Amino acid sequence: MPKLVVRCFAISLDGFSAAPDQRLEAPFGRDGLRLMGWAFATKHFSAMFGRGGGAEGIDNDFASSADANIGASILGRRMFGPPPDVQDKAAWRGWWGTNPPYHHPVFVLTHEEKAPLEMEGGTRFTFVNDGIHSALAQAFAAANGKDVRLAGGAATVRAYLKAGLIDELHLVQVPVLFGQGERIFEDLGGVESLYECVEFTPSAAVSHLRIVKKAN
Amino acid sequence: MPKLVVRCFAISLDGFSAAPDQRLEAPFGRDGLRLMGWAFATKHFSAMFGRGGGAEGIDNDFASSADANIGASILGRRMFGPPPDVQDKAAWRGWWGTNPPYHHPVFVLTHEEKAPLEMEGGTRFTFVNDGIHSALAQAFAAANGKDVRLAGGAATVRAYLKAGLIDELHLVQVPVLFGQGERIFEDLGGVESLYECVEFTPSAAVSHLRIVKKAN
Repeated sequence: MPKLVVRCFAISLDGFSAAPDQRLEAPFGRDGLRLMGWAFATKHFSAMFGRGGGAEGIDNDFASSADANIGASILGRRMFGPPPDVQDKAAWRGWWGTNPPYHHPVFVLTHEEKAPLEMEGGTRFTFVNDGIHSALAQAFAAANGKDVRLAGGAATVRAYLKAGLIDELHLVQVPVLFGQGERIFEDLGGVESLYECVEFTPSAAVSHLRIVKKAN
Repeated sequence: MPKLVVRCFAISLDGFSAAPDQRLEAPFGRDGLRLMGWAFATKHFSAMFGRGGGAEGIDNDFASSADANIGASILGRRMFGPPPDVQDKAAWRGWWGTNPPYHHPVFVLTHEEKAPLEMEGGTRFTFVNDGIHSALAQAFAAANGKDVRLAGGAATVRAYLKAGLIDELHLVQVPVLFGQGERIFEDLGGVESLYECVEFTPSAAVSHLRIVKKAN
């Protein structure tokens, strides 16, 4: 059965996945890019940005396999953008330039009605207005037998987790202190009866955790 | 200058340091002792409980040095007890039997007025009714030039952190999912301007983090 998975989802030591004040120059909020330092240091990300170098090892293994067997993605509204400081909101086509790193159908949860955006490299953004179950059904259909990746942000991961719809969640605990922001583990009492942590793989920089649905 | 330190303070992957339903048989709440598995496995804890064996290594190093240069401790009301299911509350003398593992003066924050308890092995419990600053002043005076250890629980650590009174906080991130309970990182917006994480030392079982006040 195809799965709904979350991969390489970074959280601060105090549990936040985004800091306040998201802006065009700060997609993860103020000082929020500290969450991604471990990823930017990998060989996989270096190659993605057209640079050489970057480190191999545990972090690179997780980063480079995050899209394995993924046929479609789901994003929340704030992960797609635009952030509040962008003036021409109608012209917004995501954070990722003309050739986004998805290369497959992407379903964006939003209350705004918008025509699909066909991007270079195989990414097509479809805007879903009727909720998380609908987005998931559309994504599974588009994935054509492959898994669906829920890319974020925090509120969207939390909503799918609360509904018990995520099959596997790979978290990256980053040793930085945010103090405030958005968390996935908020108002999730009961999630402990549905899910358990089955893997703990620390690297020199961060801790990788794998959380899956409990077998009944 | 003597410091106020927190050492070996365990939190679940979702940020909780105690689960709901604290009872006599469950001092960390329902299934809460999962937070302490890493510690119970160490040589230091085995020796403390009068057993042989136990593992050496990173976790043991942190566990066995947690009381280095500590002259007094501070506890919150729930960390001292009694839990709700204890009938004879007046007879309660803490969770730790006749010879508690402190062996120095311990200041318990509570609204209840109680005479000090003199225990075996040098532990003396003094009950403080007038707040965290008073407890800290009394603890520093009793520590006689040594550091003071804030032992917990979560609400008490949070209160001292919010007031900027903690000099050093050693957290142990344990890869277990609680879903609910008490956290230290709640309603602490602004803490990120006062504190930073300066050490990340994972073992095979858990991640050790050291958080200190920023230099000005």
